[in-house]
Amino acid sequence: MHFRESKAFTLAIDIPSGLFVDKPVTDEDAVVWAGFTLSFASPKLVFFLPETAKYTVQWEVLDIGLDQEFLFTTQTEVELIGKLEVLPNYIPREKYSHKGQFGHALIIGGSYGKIGAVTLTSRAALSTGAGLVTAYIPKCGYHALQASFPEAMIITDVDEEKITSIKFDIEPTVVGFGIGVGTDTKTASAFGTFLKTNKAPLVIDADGINLLSKKKTLLKLLPEQTVLTPHPKELERLIGAWKNDFDKLKKIKAFSKKHKVIVVIKGANTITVFEDKLYVNTTGNPGLSTAGSGDVLTGIITGLISQGYNPLVAAIFGVYLHGKSADIAVEDYGYQSLIASHVIDYLGEAYIDIFKQPEEPQLEEEKDAE
Amino acid sequence: MHFRESKAFTLAIDIPSGLFVDKPVTDEDAVVWAGFTLSFASPKLVFFLPETAKYTVQWEVLDIGLDQEFLFTTQTEVELIGKLEVLPNYIPREKYSHKGQFGHALIIGGSYGKIGAVTLTSRAALSTGAGLVTAYIPKCGYHALQASFPEAMIITDVDEEKITSIKFDIEPTVVGFGIGVGTDTKTASAFGTFLKTNKAPLVIDADGINLLSKKKTLLKLLPEQTVLTPHPKELERLIGAWKNDFDKLKKIKAFSKKHKVIVVIKGANTITVFEDKLYVNTTGNPGLSTAGSGDVLTGIITGLISQGYNPLVAAIFGVYLHGKSADIAVEDYGYQSLIASHVIDYLGEAYIDIFKQPEEPQLEEEKDAE
Amino acid sequence: MHFRESKAFTLAIDIPSGLFVDKPVTDEDAVVWAGFTLSFASPKLVFFLPETAKYTVQWEVLDIGLDQEFLFTTQTEVELIGKLEVLPNYIPREKYSHKGQFGHALIIGGSYGKIGAVTLTSRAALSTGAGLVTAYIPKCGYHALQASFPEAMIITDVDEEKITSIKFDIEPTVVGFGIGVGTDTKTASAFGTFLKTNKAPLVIDADGINLLSKKKTLLKLLPEQTVLTPHPKELERLIGAWKNDFDKLKKIKAFSKKHKVIVVIKGANTITVFEDKLYVNTTGNPGLSTAGSGDVLTGIITGLISQGYNPLVAAIFGVYLHGKSADIAVEDYGYQSLIASHVIDYLGEAYIDIFKQPEEPQLEEEKDAE
Amino acid sequence: MHFRESKAFTLAIDIPSGLFVDKPVTDEDAVVWAGFTLSFASPKLVFFLPETAKYTVQWEVLDIGLDQEFLFTTQTEVELIGKLEVLPNYIPREKYSHKGQFGHALIIGGSYGKIGAVTLTSRAALSTGAGLVTAYIPKCGYHALQASFPEAMIITDVDEEKITSIKFDIEPTVVGFGIGVGTDTKTASAFGTFLKTNKAPLVIDADGINLLSKKKTLLKLLPEQTVLTPHPKELERLIGAWKNDFDKLKKIKAFSKKHKVIVVIKGANTITVFEDKLYVNTTGNPGLSTAGSGDVLTGIITGLISQGYNPLVAAIFGVYLHGKSADIAVEDYGYQSLIASHVIDYLGEAYIDIFKQPEEPQLEEEKDAE
Repeated sequence: MHFRESKAFTLAIDIPSGLFVDKPVTDEDAVVWAGFTLSFASPKLVFFLPETAKYTVQWEVLDIGLDQEFLFTTQTEVELIGKLEVLPNYIPREKYSHKGQFGHALIIGGSYGKIGAVTLTSRAALSTGAGLVTAYIPKCGYHALQASFPEAMIITDVDEEKITSIKFDIEPTVVGFGIGVGTDTKTASAFGTFLKTNKAPLVIDADGINLLSKKKTLLKLLPEQTVLTPHPKELERLIGAWKNDFDKLKKIKAFSKKHKVIVVIKGANTITVFEDKLYVNTTGNPGLSTAGSGDVLTGIITGLISQGYNPLVAAIFGVYLHGKSADIAVEDYGYQSLIASHVIDYLGEAYIDIFKQPEEPQLEEEKDAE
Repeated sequence: MHFRESKAFTLAIDIPSGLFVDKPVTDEDAVVWAGFTLSFASPKLVFFLPETAKYTVQWEVLDIGLDQEFLFTTQTEVELIGKLEVLPNYIPREKYSHKGQFGHALIIGGSYGKIGAVTLTSRAALSTGAGLVTAYIPKCGYHALQASFPEAMIITDVDEEKITSIKFDIEPTVVGFGIGVGTDTKTASAFGTFLKTNKAPLVIDADGINLLSKKKTLLKLLPEQTVLTPHPKELERLIGAWKNDFDKLKKIKAFSKKHKVIVVIKGANTITVFEDKLYVNTTGNPGLSTAGSGDVLTGIITGLISQGYNPLVAAIFGVYLHGKSADIAVEDYGYQSLIASHVIDYLGEAYIDIFKQPEEPQLEEEKDAE
Repeated sequence: MHFRESKAFTLAIDIPSGLFVDKPVTDEDAVVWAGFTLSFASPKLVFFLPETAKYTVQWEVLDIGLDQEFLFTTQTEVELIGKLEVLPNYIPREKYSHKGQFGHALIIGGSYGKIGAVTLTSRAALSTGAGLVTAYIPKCGYHALQASFPEAMIITDVDEEKITSIKFDIEPTVVGFGIGVGTDTKTASAFGTFLKTNKAPLVIDADGINLLSKKKTLLKLLPEQTVLTPHPKELERLIGAWKNDFDKLKKIKAFSKKHKVIVVIKGANTITVFEDKLYVNTTGNPGLSTAGSGDVLTGIITGLISQGYNPLVAAIFGVYLHGKSADIAVEDYGYQSLIASHVIDYLGEAYIDIFKQPEEPQLEEEKDAE
Repeated sequence: MHFRESKAFTLAIDIPSGLFVDKPVTDEDAVVWAGFTLSFASPKLVFFLPETAKYTVQWEVLDIGLDQEFLFTTQTEVELIGKLEVLPNYIPREKYSHKGQFGHALIIGGSYGKIGAVTLTSRAALSTGAGLVTAYIPKCGYHALQASFPEAMIITDVDEEKITSIKFDIEPTVVGFGIGVGTDTKTASAFGTFLKTNKAPLVIDADGINLLSKKKTLLKLLPEQTVLTPHPKELERLIGAWKNDFDKLKKIKAFSKKHKVIVVIKGANTITVFEDKLYVNTTGNPGLSTAGSGDVLTGIITGLISQGYNPLVAAIFGVYLHGKSADIAVEDYGYQSLIASHVIDYLGEAYIDIFKQPEEPQLEEEKDAE
């Protein structure tokens, strides 16, 4: 019997045997499946990558007396994002604020049968704190959006079923593009024309990313620090196939540096990549594997940029809020019944949670004494 | 005065006098109406059949020292389904899941004035855990569904008022068919054409069942373990009239074996039949006697198959979840005010409840001591 | 200074001085405005009539040793309706029930711009316990109702903006007619034609009553125990002007006896009149003075008849439930913010409340001891 | 280092040094930024004006033994509005009320893509206590409003996309005009024609105010005590540019006296101006800086006038309720996730709060004793 097939509980020290901190696992590497890994000094990136995370069910970090100051000041390429990391980036609302200060988010998307995605993105942008939200959609979505989201303003394309030209007389603070938009050639053409004159920061998702993949020259027209939020297939179309998680990260870093864009790799531990740095998110749960969950994330990031967060912070903080909101919602709905609208509904609690002290673990005997 | 007309409290031992475990009651059988039946070793099937359940208001099983191992290992034809029976079948969500893993449920249905049924079925499928949900409806339902259920994608038939052709370019994991679809000949024809090429597992309800009854040759085109969820009249059209509950079960078993389908007999104790086995559900309450309740059940079963449950487990577990959700909801709404949307809203609590320990009965004196 | 202008607290014994139990007050009657009336044996009808209720802010009944059995068995013309009176009329739901047992309520109404009224009535009917609800509306209401109330089925008139012919192929258990229907001559004509063949029990509200007033011969076509729920102006059009509250009641009784209809006089203490008997409701509050409140009442009464209550009990119980639901809702919303939808949302709690023991008044010292 | 740049905590006495009670601050005035100001006898107006409020983070008033009766009876030009000020103006609902008593509010507004604003205003008017609400909108908003707000009645303009003529056969108690209405010349013309015959009290917001600014002669047609609720840019178009907050107030007072209108200056401390008096609101928070917040305020004021409040009290009380509702809602949603619909949802709690005793501060030792 191979050790790795043993059903006994396996404790790994620092890193499960056979796993490397800096290169991928191959079939020949007989990695031990650890029930628990006690890691030294800091968690390893491989604990968060899809191909290798499975090798340790749980992990904890042991302080082995390395110089803390050295650790904190060393510029690492990987940062874990939790409450303590987002807190200093939070922008408080001043009393004498007005909605003009929180910007005007424009959400461009939708096509026949896929208007709900725009509703979710727009609602998420407003519920994240944008001052105003306008949805730009094909005509076929007019009644639905007007009925279900009264706080939004709507501009419709001349076309009934898809986006064919992007023209508006508002001055958006930020534009979210691509949710449910399809890849019709007229839509592609309208997107290209829009990019030529657009000055606003951009968040691009879904078919918006597919349109970039189809016509890579458009990448040159993106404003610096445009946020891209691809799911795996969209990512592959954008950067090409990868051999393994390490190769994928390498390719994304190169892509990010070349085009000066921020890439949000959606997954169990969503990783935001900008140039050489990786920001590994620690919130979120499998309940987010549900229709529209990504549309809500796009709305959250757009809503943050709208109110003044820079795009990188908006991406990192947005991914955190999205996951945290789901973490709170899942206590009421469970993994299976959580739907994307719930993530929007619980955004307020996710914000409020930022200022809550983490609960200190309590000893059993203290509990009994209560 | 006859004994059975007595108003005195009647305790029956094992089974109310005059009731048989294996054959129907006739008018000549002067069955005693028992207030309470103390049954030996296991409950009897007749306690769950509409014609005979009324003879005992309550029942409990007395352990009479039969060899428990024998009881457990004996392959019985009837299984009572409660929390302990569904728990081992529950598929946990892994951390590195994504919505592709939970499938794409396609709900085909609706006709002019009956679009709400598709909304309920689609919402139930998503809230049960399907990764994606697409609704295939006639054009007249477009605005309503787009406005009320943003998480859904929509494909519309070429016809304004009914389904006349079933064509789509998605690859559904499972198809729910029939809710509110009507029995127009064009719809019948579209259904037949669809069945000829369909490979996805099927859940068929309402007019979908009526269409099968009208043209029995379609039954040959059903994939194995297709789930049918008829109400009594739809069932009768499908299998013909029955003499009594025993005859009904016999006919259903024969039908199930012949066509390799799973039949869910909706009622106070919904019974799922597959070949010779009966699965008697123990959750649910009279609050479920409300418009759209069946549509929600169809959505739940479809949503379970979508995320990887096999059709038989999906039917049994789905019926359990549907009833459990209603049991929790009824505490807030009462029997009369419970509506089908509430059953969807409480699905999360029904899932969470699976992992709760059943409360142990507390003695009165313990309560007083609190 | 007149005594009645005194600002001192006034206690009235049995009935405020100047008030009569059986005839109206005139300007010459210098009725005392009582802060509290201690009434003998039973409350007086004048405590509940708009013109005279104002003379006593509060009242209580003192048991003066009259023969209780005599009081209970005496057939009084006036009955106060509270929890104890509705409880014996409650029809419990049996376990082996199905939605067919709770009937199919058909709500016919609406016109351009007044479709919401039908939504409220239909939702109220279902939330009161009807098994199925179909709304019959002009075409202009199709999308709105389909989007906002998925449990309902819809049949549309051939006309876009109003009801012009009432044709359907369902067999309703009960029909609610008139909410938002307008008084167009085509609508009037359709109503007349409908009445000629209709066999189902009827609840008529709003413009439905106005149509009866315009063409009194239609009254002959009403089924026995049709329920009419007029507000004051609709009532006046129906029975003509009255001199005072007593005269009004006299006219209504005569009208009820002549046409064999049940008249629900909406107000602070809604009074249901059938022939010579008056049922004075004790639930409800000023929060019900809000748009759509009457539509909800029509839906509740229709929903009760649908599930088997006879029309008189349905009217009395429906008025009670409507008021009770508002009484519970007002604790969360206050009088001003209560809207008609809330009354529907709280119907479940109103049902559940029926089975709650009324709280016993607690002495101050007992409270302190807690 | 300048004192004002000191990071030490600064306590100001009476008023931060360099700030004047009656004239604006210039760049030369080296005003101290106070962490806390202990003000004598009464708070100063400058604590509530945008340009100067920032100079003191917090303030409290010290009773310095001035003759209280003198203070209370002195007619001051500035009144702070809190719970104690609105309470005496609250109109209780009498038991024998009916919806006719609470008036019929007519909301005229909306244009293509801006229908949601009318939904919010109309819902706010009803939820504030109007008896009936009718929305007057262009045709393009019909389905959305009918679907999302069933309690409302709807009248549509002859035009599909904008208001082009204002004709109705109802008798509104009050009219709210301008939300989302645009400034098309046809709309402007329809507004002018409407003003010539209108007798109902008016609340004018948003583009309604812009229409007045474009054609100042319309101001002569406004009923006395018309309420205007401009945001800063709308205000500037109406009264011209101002040099500073003091100049702004002076201009508004002059405008109010000239046209006999009430001006609500929206901001962190919303100030209601009528002739020479200023009413400074103390409720509200930065969460109100969100799309549709102003539409809700217009609806609240309109709903108060509808039920019998005079326009000045309605403006003052409405601003208070709007802020209070947001203050309660923000505890659940946080500043960023609060959206305009929440403000409507919490209006009931804002009303109920009026009758709650303010919590007395509790000493630590008292808390411990519990």
